[in-house]
Amino acid sequence: MRLANSVAPGKTVLKDAFWTPYQKLVTEVVLPYQEKILNDEIPNAEKSHALANFRIAAGAEDGAFYGMVFQDSDVAKWLEAASYSLTVHPDPQLEQRVDEVIALVAKAQQPDGYLDTYFTIKEPEHRWMDLLEGHELYCMGHMMEAAAAHYEATGKETLLDVARRMADHIQSVFGPDRRYGIPGHEEVEIGLMRLYQATGEKKYLEMASYFIDARGTRPEFFADERKNRDFEVFGMDPENLDYNQSFAPVREQKSARGHAVRAVYLYRAMAEVAAADGDESLYRACRTLWRDIVDRKMYVTGAIGACGELESFSVDYDLPPDRAYAETCAQVGLVFWARAMLNIEAKGEYADVMELCLYNSTISGMQMDGRHFFYVNPLEVNPGLSGEVFGMRHVLPERPGWYACACCPPNLARMILSLGQSCWSENADTVYSHLMIGQEADLALAKIRVESGYPWDGAVTYTVSPKEKKEFCFAVHIPGYVAPGELTVKCNGAALPVQIAQKASGVSADRADAAAVLCDGYLYLNRSWKDGDTVSLEFPLQVRRLYGTVRVRDTAGQTALMRGPVVYCFEGADNGPYLQALRLPRGAAVTEQRETDGVLSGCVSLRMNGLREADSASLYSAEPPACEETELKAIPYYLWGNRGRNQMRVWIRE
Amino acid sequence: MRLANSVAPGKTVLKDAFWTPYQKLVTEVVLPYQEKILNDEIPNAEKSHALANFRIAAGAEDGAFYGMVFQDSDVAKWLEAASYSLTVHPDPQLEQRVDEVIALVAKAQQPDGYLDTYFTIKEPEHRWMDLLEGHELYCMGHMMEAAAAHYEATGKETLLDVARRMADHIQSVFGPDRRYGIPGHEEVEIGLMRLYQATGEKKYLEMASYFIDARGTRPEFFADERKNRDFEVFGMDPENLDYNQSFAPVREQKSARGHAVRAVYLYRAMAEVAAADGDESLYRACRTLWRDIVDRKMYVTGAIGACGELESFSVDYDLPPDRAYAETCAQVGLVFWARAMLNIEAKGEYADVMELCLYNSTISGMQMDGRHFFYVNPLEVNPGLSGEVFGMRHVLPERPGWYACACCPPNLARMILSLGQSCWSENADTVYSHLMIGQEADLALAKIRVESGYPWDGAVTYTVSPKEKKEFCFAVHIPGYVAPGELTVKCNGAALPVQIAQKASGVSADRADAAAVLCDGYLYLNRSWKDGDTVSLEFPLQVRRLYGTVRVRDTAGQTALMRGPVVYCFEGADNGPYLQALRLPRGAAVTEQRETDGVLSGCVSLRMNGLREADSASLYSAEPPACEETELKAIPYYLWGNRGRNQMRVWIRE
Repeated sequence: MRLANSVAPGKTVLKDAFWTPYQKLVTEVVLPYQEKILNDEIPNAEKSHALANFRIAAGAEDGAFYGMVFQDSDVAKWLEAASYSLTVHPDPQLEQRVDEVIALVAKAQQPDGYLDTYFTIKEPEHRWMDLLEGHELYCMGHMMEAAAAHYEATGKETLLDVARRMADHIQSVFGPDRRYGIPGHEEVEIGLMRLYQATGEKKYLEMASYFIDARGTRPEFFADERKNRDFEVFGMDPENLDYNQSFAPVREQKSARGHAVRAVYLYRAMAEVAAADGDESLYRACRTLWRDIVDRKMYVTGAIGACGELESFSVDYDLPPDRAYAETCAQVGLVFWARAMLNIEAKGEYADVMELCLYNSTISGMQMDGRHFFYVNPLEVNPGLSGEVFGMRHVLPERPGWYACACCPPNLARMILSLGQSCWSENADTVYSHLMIGQEADLALAKIRVESGYPWDGAVTYTVSPKEKKEFCFAVHIPGYVAPGELTVKCNGAALPVQIAQKASGVSADRADAAAVLCDGYLYLNRSWKDGDTVSLEFPLQVRRLYGTVRVRDTAGQTALMRGPVVYCFEGADNGPYLQALRLPRGAAVTEQRETDGVLSGCVSLRMNGLREADSASLYSAEPPACEETELKAIPYYLWGNRGRNQMRVWIRE
Repeated sequence: MRLANSVAPGKTVLKDAFWTPYQKLVTEVVLPYQEKILNDEIPNAEKSHALANFRIAAGAEDGAFYGMVFQDSDVAKWLEAASYSLTVHPDPQLEQRVDEVIALVAKAQQPDGYLDTYFTIKEPEHRWMDLLEGHELYCMGHMMEAAAAHYEATGKETLLDVARRMADHIQSVFGPDRRYGIPGHEEVEIGLMRLYQATGEKKYLEMASYFIDARGTRPEFFADERKNRDFEVFGMDPENLDYNQSFAPVREQKSARGHAVRAVYLYRAMAEVAAADGDESLYRACRTLWRDIVDRKMYVTGAIGACGELESFSVDYDLPPDRAYAETCAQVGLVFWARAMLNIEAKGEYADVMELCLYNSTISGMQMDGRHFFYVNPLEVNPGLSGEVFGMRHVLPERPGWYACACCPPNLARMILSLGQSCWSENADTVYSHLMIGQEADLALAKIRVESGYPWDGAVTYTVSPKEKKEFCFAVHIPGYVAPGELTVKCNGAALPVQIAQKASGVSADRADAAAVLCDGYLYLNRSWKDGDTVSLEFPLQVRRLYGTVRVRDTAGQTALMRGPVVYCFEGADNGPYLQALRLPRGAAVTEQRETDGVLSGCVSLRMNGLREADSASLYSAEPPACEETELKAIPYYLWGNRGRNQMRVWIRE
């Protein structure tokens, strides 16, 4: 295992035409709006009461608990995203408000370290009696993530101390020598690993490791828990072991099952524990689950969790575009899991999937106004059916405003604000660049400036300023769709030949400077870097057609368009009614256009000659529908639904 | 309105290579099996208890009610089908057992005429307090249908008297001058009309008319009923007015909505009342609803009720093949409705739809062993998904055995055994033949022998023996797919020219003998018929391709094959895995083969050269799948699922 670490918050400053506006949108619109929601300051929005719950639990206010059993996590997610925000856009007033919320959280913590306002206010006698759906470990896990983020971003330890006490309390309850327990919704494992990463304290790693390896070893646990309880709880079926990935010990699991968000949160934690422990068998389990998803359960947009029931993975190759669940949070979780996998092994497939999710199925969850969000990211939407008929009711044709169960908006916020951390891994002798995002990065081995036209242009320049005179390896992810022959690599303006190696082990720091070695999706450059050395990459971004395996019933005979990492879609706004009547002949030429107006501004849209089959009001005819030529227009998938309610589809008939 | 009547049971004896075996299967297998079920004599079958309920209600046995609230209707449906069976296949022992059941039913009837064992045994104080879901009127309606059938089949009046007392009781409770009430599940309207047809008593027509016109006039009725009740009932939402077609007065309804079986039962009753009353406005309402279904809500197999939730119609053009509900009973109801419409107006579209349902989406509900049945008749089945994943759980890949809510098997039984009645309408001067089914029919104007090779050959001969020397019109339905130029008509062996008329009003009994006039799907022949006059029809049965309007998303770019009235499908058994990988080029020649073995024996199957796209285990590729030529085989849709669990689809990519 080649181990590396992500970079800490604040070590990267994005300067990217694509992503910087997203960070601005999140800091200026999404987070302030969420803050108001948490404070119940938005008229006509569904009441949150999340901060009020903390005030009540802290004894600072009278009242009753209100909200979901996991309402606390909204505060934790906001704290985490706000902490990242402080590194992206320092704001003393925000920092002060964050400190105030943290002080409140600390006051709500119980003397023994327990922190969950639902149980503290409402059912103190039922602590730790409903691990299946009580979400205590889930909420505390999110608070640990927030604590690590806040500490890394600000150096302050108030929340970190809260999290330590919380984790210590959990350790006093659960563990190999104490009570058996696993959370119904994985997250505490991630929180504990973040706490471990922030503090270096092994006990948190051990606790995460415990929860991971305990899972699936006592299949009767949740059912027993329910039997032993004398009070009613939320009615999730305790026998549904797939739902929360407890159907087998995690190292024996061969297929991704159940709730997709829960699953990828678990897999991320598994990867982080595997990296921390150098645990090959746990990494192998991660690999198996990764390939299961990527080979059989992932939409062309990188979206996962196809099933509209219980937000779950469906069976292999069941990927209906029009009934997708594809929760924004699941794709965010997949990005974080990919990041964790990249810290174990620099494989192009991890970075490719991360990139696919980033440019498509995560940000599709947010309207360009930052005020409307999708849970569900379908690949086809049909107003009149989507959101209305049986089996499609979860698929909304337009993004609604902030909702009561607001998991996706803050998840997007933290993904976007922590994006710099997803760009790099580093260890003592190698810097890995996973994403071609414009930025200035302050890494252990070097400062690196990235100038990037990505994703619209295949042109990126890295300017390296080593911290000390030392030979090290600079490894850059080359997207899987780039043919090696089409890649031009220049070092300080001089073309560098690209050699192809089959095994990463063939790449080492003692390779000659003269060549770049492409191996498993990464381009390795070893040299004694001098201040101001540049590495430039150029590759053509041609529009390409994707075809699904015939095993996927719904996309047979259809094609999807991609350009670089960007998936395209067809909307009614550009292409008129009945998108299913459109056909794109196999050889049709595609022209690209840089859009300059409105929400599409800046993106590359595609135009091509296609065919339109004639509409008919009567159901059946013995004559095939007449065809006429028509100009088709495709826009980036992530931008769909920004021009009003209309039909949309990614897959178009060939 | 041109009014005619159906013929009574016993007036036709089918002698048809296609249908006689079905009648034999029903009389020899289905009905005896159902009788055993009703008597709880089948080990391992779900308990019925239906006859025990009657014994308990009659005071002949102690015990508790068991079963659905509408369990009584199982007995009624069996009585109706068994009565028809006695006309198809006289059986003194069966007749005696029927009489015994009828005697039991009569004993269970309450002194005031009320008859419903659920309420009599279990909740006598709650009579008529849950019209939404109590199913009292539904059960009694079925008993009235049984009574009319038994009387028509045997001349016996025991059950008819029960039904009269029942109807009189209903009339004492509900009506314009008494309580307002409409049934949550339409059926009593049909029962009352059957009673009217059997007895000629106008009060039953008036009562049917009352229930029809009362519907939709008090939208708050079911909600009020629930509010006024102090006991719990089955939880159907009383505000869902679409579900039971009470969203508007029936004459104002423009679209078919809600539970499909309820809907077509209502529409049939509307048509029968319209015919009996000569009520043009009610018939216009029927026409509007008919066209709504046929133009926007009917599968190519004639199936209706696309939505898997609440067994209901979906929105216009939402006809997913793989998620169809398409309940057998809905298509049976559509056959009966079409029959009623044909008694008002001889329009080819009514007979075409009736034929489409008969040869496809009704009998697809029954395994060729007569022991396994589908509720749901999908146009595409995918083992591993169908019956298993969200949105498709109702779509079973194999017919299960007899089930507790056994509405479809007896509905099929009565449709098949009363098929002779669907073949003809007659009035004083015209005999209409709606279906080309081999038989001997004893009609008012003539005895007619039909020799038919249909549906496999387009060759039918009618031999007419008039009852008296009189000029009358013989009108024969010509299927809509037959091009007039391809129809050969011979009278006594001599070719008769076919004239085409635009309006049925242009056809009258004084037209010259020399020509046959084709108008709106019927061929009219006027003459003084002599004993033994023959009319022969010949038309080619070519395989034709059907195309759905592009408004139906799911079938765009695909085609369905028909030959005559028979829809074809592709099964995995003949075509290997991944039927979605198959393509049928537009011009591909089709060869026909008369099958001689196994369950396919006797049918015409189709073979054609097609293409198969190569399978790939990985999800996405930038290369289109390779294609190879392959021979495809299609079999009649109604025979699908008789050769084990496998994939099936009607629509194939072109």
